[in-house]
Parts: sequence; structure tokens; C-alpha cells
Amino acid sequence: MDPDFAALDAYLDEHNLDGYAFADDESNSDLYYTTGFGAPDPFVGVYTPDETAILVSSLEYGRAKKEARADTVKRRSEYEPREKQAEYGEDRVQQKVVSEFLADVGVESVATQHGFPAGLADGLREEGVTVDPESTASGVVTDVRAVKTEEELEYVREAQKANENAMAAAEALIREATVEDGVLQYEGEPLTSERVTEEIEVALIREGCALDETIVACGADAADPHDRGSGPLEAGETIIIDIFPRNKASKYHADMTRTFVKGEATDTQRDWHAVTDEARKAALDAVEAGATGEEVNQAVVDVYQDAGHPTVFTDPDTETGFIHSTGHGVGLDVHEAPSISLNGEELEAGHVITIEPGLYDPAVGGVRIEDIVVVTEDGYENLTDYPIELEVE
Amino acid sequence: MDPDFAALDAYLDEHNLDGYAFADDESNSDLYYTTGFGAPDPFVGVYTPDETAILVSSLEYGRAKKEARADTVKRRSEYEPREKQAEYGEDRVQQKVVSEFLADVGVESVATQHGFPAGLADGLREEGVTVDPESTASGVVTDVRAVKTEEELEYVREAQKANENAMAAAEALIREATVEDGVLQYEGEPLTSERVTEEIEVALIREGCALDETIVACGADAADPHDRGSGPLEAGETIIIDIFPRNKASKYHADMTRTFVKGEATDTQRDWHAVTDEARKAALDAVEAGATGEEVNQAVVDVYQDAGHPTVFTDPDTETGFIHSTGHGVGLDVHEAPSISLNGEELEAGHVITIEPGLYDPAVGGVRIEDIVVVTEDGYENLTDYPIELEVE
Repeated sequence: MDPDFAALDAYLDEHNLDGYAFADDESNSDLYYTTGFGAPDPFVGVYTPDETAILVSSLEYGRAKKEARADTVKRRSEYEPREKQAEYGEDRVQQKVVSEFLADVGVESVATQHGFPAGLADGLREEGVTVDPESTASGVVTDVRAVKTEEELEYVREAQKANENAMAAAEALIREATVEDGVLQYEGEPLTSERVTEEIEVALIREGCALDETIVACGADAADPHDRGSGPLEAGETIIIDIFPRNKASKYHADMTRTFVKGEATDTQRDWHAVTDEARKAALDAVEAGATGEEVNQAVVDVYQDAGHPTVFTDPDTETGFIHSTGHGVGLDVHEAPSISLNGEELEAGHVITIEPGLYDPAVGGVRIEDIVVVTEDGYENLTDYPIELEVE
Repeated sequence: MDPDFAALDAYLDEHNLDGYAFADDESNSDLYYTTGFGAPDPFVGVYTPDETAILVSSLEYGRAKKEARADTVKRRSEYEPREKQAEYGEDRVQQKVVSEFLADVGVESVATQHGFPAGLADGLREEGVTVDPESTASGVVTDVRAVKTEEELEYVREAQKANENAMAAAEALIREATVEDGVLQYEGEPLTSERVTEEIEVALIREGCALDETIVACGADAADPHDRGSGPLEAGETIIIDIFPRNKASKYHADMTRTFVKGEATDTQRDWHAVTDEARKAALDAVEAGATGEEVNQAVVDVYQDAGHPTVFTDPDTETGFIHSTGHGVGLDVHEAPSISLNGEELEAGHVITIEPGLYDPAVGGVRIEDIVVVTEDGYENLTDYPIELEVE
């Protein structure tokens, strides 16, 4: 992969800094993206317009030489941490090691992520390094990696394919369930959110994907967009299934939501589902390079408002109706730039975003429909291939 | 749960600071332990000897009121971020909000983790708050939570039980496999590391556990303790299986390793396995409250040295033999305090640690045996219940 770091170069030039430094583990997507390397224990990386360098433990050195996209791979032991510990004490070892590493790469001043370790920032300053953290959590590298290469799009497509198979496995459970006293039954037991979640997770593992969380939320649970759902699923209630797996090899995510009702839906459920699908289509019609995330969000707000539903964008205090944003970027992180919301920035070709309108009310339940798409110059390509049908017989 | 924060109180008193502040998401175990709350998006927490307070988004407020162990739960919107954005600009919103929150709790000076966000530390200082990050990554809260309560021990036991079932599923695959041209075959295909890993993951999911990584490493792969393993498994080669799941509900981990040979092991493999088990027993004999992690590690080094195997502790440059530490703490993190290694600190009753000696050489493969135990006043309780047998027929 060959990311385009022109925006990062411009940032460093504008702030008159030599490089951009990281100190974190593989959970830091900006670090992984910039260096092409991840490790379970923290390591240090620095980007300059001339080279990318990383500083790793001896245990990771061999793998780093093979896997990292870095021009320079240094071993921590080269900087004699044991001798430094004896001379300066344990508290100053890391700042001594890292400042010498930066000097080796010709770096005297660095930008960092907002979340760079404060202890190391203070320590490096003691050693004479200028450290200038970004002022907000979403930084310049986050913006760079929001625009996907063709290779990254393939990774998202692969994760989304697994996602669709997992959704099909979940829907099949609901379809095969019988109903007793209004509760879904499967293999002689009540069919629970937990059981459906397990089936989704097993389906994803079979396809090389992992996930920490899945939402299978029914009835009142579904009315809270952050509720993961629990307990028996009920016929005639909406069931929101929201799956966001990560492919373990590529580390890229997908994201999709569908809403089901076992048996016959009520008129209200059907209306909500139809207007939400209308909102989804209106948002998609607004997507193209040059449009803003705010405009796409507004398309959803307009549809809901015309249909008489409250939204947090028209009434900030509402607790029912459309109470979250329209969408977000997806990539190495399941939530990343750009934002499809108020103040959402301009979309660029290659942005991968979700479009996920929804309506919520504890008295009715919740309805959400979510597709994942890639922004193109004159519109979008929908990466989602799954039917949008409310009722499951 | 009712953790004992006396050591944290003493730290604050010693450094003359009002409180200990965090700003991170649920992946930060110190924050989760201190506040009893986790959320996928970053939130702020502050501990003082008088109260624990958290600052969360409106979306998390309801759940935080219910779930958090905090005395005070504040909503971000109470601090009028929109008005602050208009007045001070986006870059200063967070520092204004957080400094006002700290003032509400009566806090003017804070200790923080080493990894506290540097951007927020600088911002809070601009607002007149004293911010004093810890000088090393493993901090005072990490040490506090290393000592487990009875409730936490139950969580580890539960995760370890699932771990043993997953290991049994993996061993069963190896047992049921046939051998063709030296390669294990299962259901008409070569049995691969990936297939065994999948079986382990599915077994864990069925028991409410998750995991990001598993090691199923055969032959030369097994000679590298960090190699996850890949490709077909071979008869007559050592197969290291190292499983470290996290229970999704409790968030606590377990950790166990066994080494298998399909068919007949060589004399060298048998010797290595026997001396490694001897090292395991010697380390366990050394475990008790008041012993140091260094002493327990030395017990392993002594056994290997007496048997003529190199170790990194006797020869820092060796690339074969015993090339990692004896063990580590296990809890909310799979690797946490205390360290069972050089400079390993004094053990306390309630520490949960691994004992995992191993030998490695690309010419032979790798052998590792790992148990998880809890330190007691006069020894240890082994939380591991799984046979130690090399050969699988």
C-alpha cells in the first residue's frame, strides 16, 4: 500500500515541525496506517517527509523488518536502556531512549496525536525535543486515511461479504423459530438476543472476522440505539441487528444494520420502516464528492421532518424519533472520519461511510437501516448487498 | 466490588495532588477498575480520596448512572460545549469542559497515567490545572488492581474453565486427525493452525468469551514465542497451543499453554517437555506472598541452566533456549502487573500470575507449559485443571 501523505507534509510544514511521532500499540490505527506495523506492546514511530522510522523491542525486531512499511527499524537495545536505567533511573529511561532515536532520524521537533502519552511528551521536552500535540482527537493522519485506496476498498468489501453471511445466519434463526405465547422458540428454548449474537459471531469467525460487540435488540431495547439487547425475542416487535466485524488479517471493518419483525408488523412499524428506507435513499442521493456530511445528514432530517417525526437536529431535547447522526466513516476503525452529521466535512472520492437513519420510541421499539458505501466523484457505490425487508415469516 | 485504594490515596498525598484523572475509553483497564464504567468512546474520570466522578456524553448518561461505581456522574452537555465552541473555538472546548468538571469536584491538581492524552494535559495546564503524569507506563492503579478480590478471582476461574474446554476442543481435533505423508488430516483436508484456532474461538464464543489472538504454532513456528502459527500441522513436531480468552461479561482473562506432539515424540522433545515441566514445578514451589517475581523467575533459570540450556538471563544474546520471562499478572489485561522476571517485584496474596517456562530452537521447535495461579500467604492455588501430556495418539 502506498498512502498519500501530502496533507501530513503540509501540516508539518505549516507548524514548522520536523516529524510526526507516535507511541502506542496496534490498537492505534493512525500509527498502524503510517508505519504499516502493529504490535501488542507499545512501540514508537516517527514520520518525516523523508522517511518513516520505528523503534521496537528485540522480540518484535525480526517481524518489524519483514512487515513494516518503515524505511528504518531500530531496536530498543541499540539505545542501551539497561545502562541508561543505571545512570538516570527508571523514570527517565524511556525519554532518553526515544529522544536519541529521534535525533538519529534527524528530528528535533514533533507533532503528535492529541492522545500521545503525556508522560512521554513531558519527558521528551525535558530532553530538549519540541512536542506539539494536535488540539483535537481527530487528527491529520485520521483525515489522510479516511480516503481509501483500491486495496483498502477490497478489504472493506471482503469484511462486508462476511457481514452479509452473518446477517443471513441471524435472519435464518428468526425465520426458523416458532412462536409460543408471543416469544420466539428455537430448538426447544426461547430464542434470545444472546443466542442470535452467538450465531453471528460463529459465522464471522468462520470467515476470518472478529468482533467485540453486536447489537441484536428487540422491543424496548431496540428503542435505545446503544443497547446491545438481551433476553428472549418477541414476535410482533422490531428486532434491530447491527453487525460491525473486523477482518482479522486486513484489520478493516464493515458495518450494516437491518430491522426485522417476526410475523406480521403493525402499521406503525411498517410506516417507520418505509420512511426510514426513504430517508436512506434520500441520503444516498445526496452523497457525492464535494457534498458535505452535513448536507447528507440534512437529507435524512428533511425526510423525517416532512413525515412528522422529531429529530435531535430540529429539537435537541427530544428523546424519541431520529436521535443520532446519519453515519460515519469506516476503515481500520469502525467509527472514523468523515462525520455524516452536523458540521460534517466535505466528502471526497474514496471515503467509506455508513448511511444509517433510524427511529426510536420505547412505545414502538426501534427501526434502523444501515448501508455502507464508498463515495465516488459523481455519487457512490453501495458496498451492501442485502435485502431490506421488515417481516420475516 | 469494593477495591482498596489506600495505595492510591498515599500516592496522591505523597505528591500533594487533589486527584487522579483519566481520559480514555473502555480499553483502559485502570479507568474501568477505578470507576466501574466503560464506554466505547472516550470519557473522563477523576478519583479523589472523597469521591469518584465521571463525565460522559448524554448517550452514555443513563447507563453510567446505573452501572458506574462513581459517586458523581456528570453529563458533558451540562458544561455547554456548543457555547464554549462558539466562544473559544473547537480547539479549546474540551479543556474548558474538563477543567470546569474538575473544579466542580474540587480538584485543582491531578496525577494521571503516563499515557494520559498529551493534548488534554497541555490544555488543562492552560486552564490553570496542575497535571502530573506518572513517569512509567505501569502506574499506581495498575499495582492496586494486581491484587484481586474474591469476586475477581471467580471471574478468572470462569474464564479459565472456558479456556480448558477450548483447549480440549483443540486437542480433540489433533487426536481425531489422521496422518498422511507426515501431515495431519481432518475431514479430508490438511489440519491447519488456522482450523484449530477457529475451533478454539468457536468453543470460547459458546462460553461467552472473546479473544483477539490465539497461538497454534507447529515446528519452526513454535520456535518463535511470538509467532501465531499458520499452515498444516505436522506429525512428530511440537505444537504449542496458547489460549488467553476474555470473558465478555466480566472482562477478566485467563491464560494457559500446552504443547502436543501428534504420534511419537523424539527423545529431545520428551527431554525438553520434561525439563520444562520441572521448571514449572520449581517456579510454583517458589511462589508465595513475600517472594519476588525475580526469585520465581530465577527458579526456572536454575532448572534450565542445570540441564545445560541457555537462557536470556544468563546469556542476553542467546536466540535459543529459554528466551522470555517466566510469567506475568493476568486480570482485566492479559498482561499486567506483577512481572515474573528480572526486577520482578514482591508478590502479594491475591496476585494472579502465569508460570510459563519454555524452550525454543528452530532445529527442534518449541515447548511451553503455562499454568495460571493465584498467590496465597503460604504458596499458591493453581487455577489450572488440564493434563500435561506431550504425546497425542
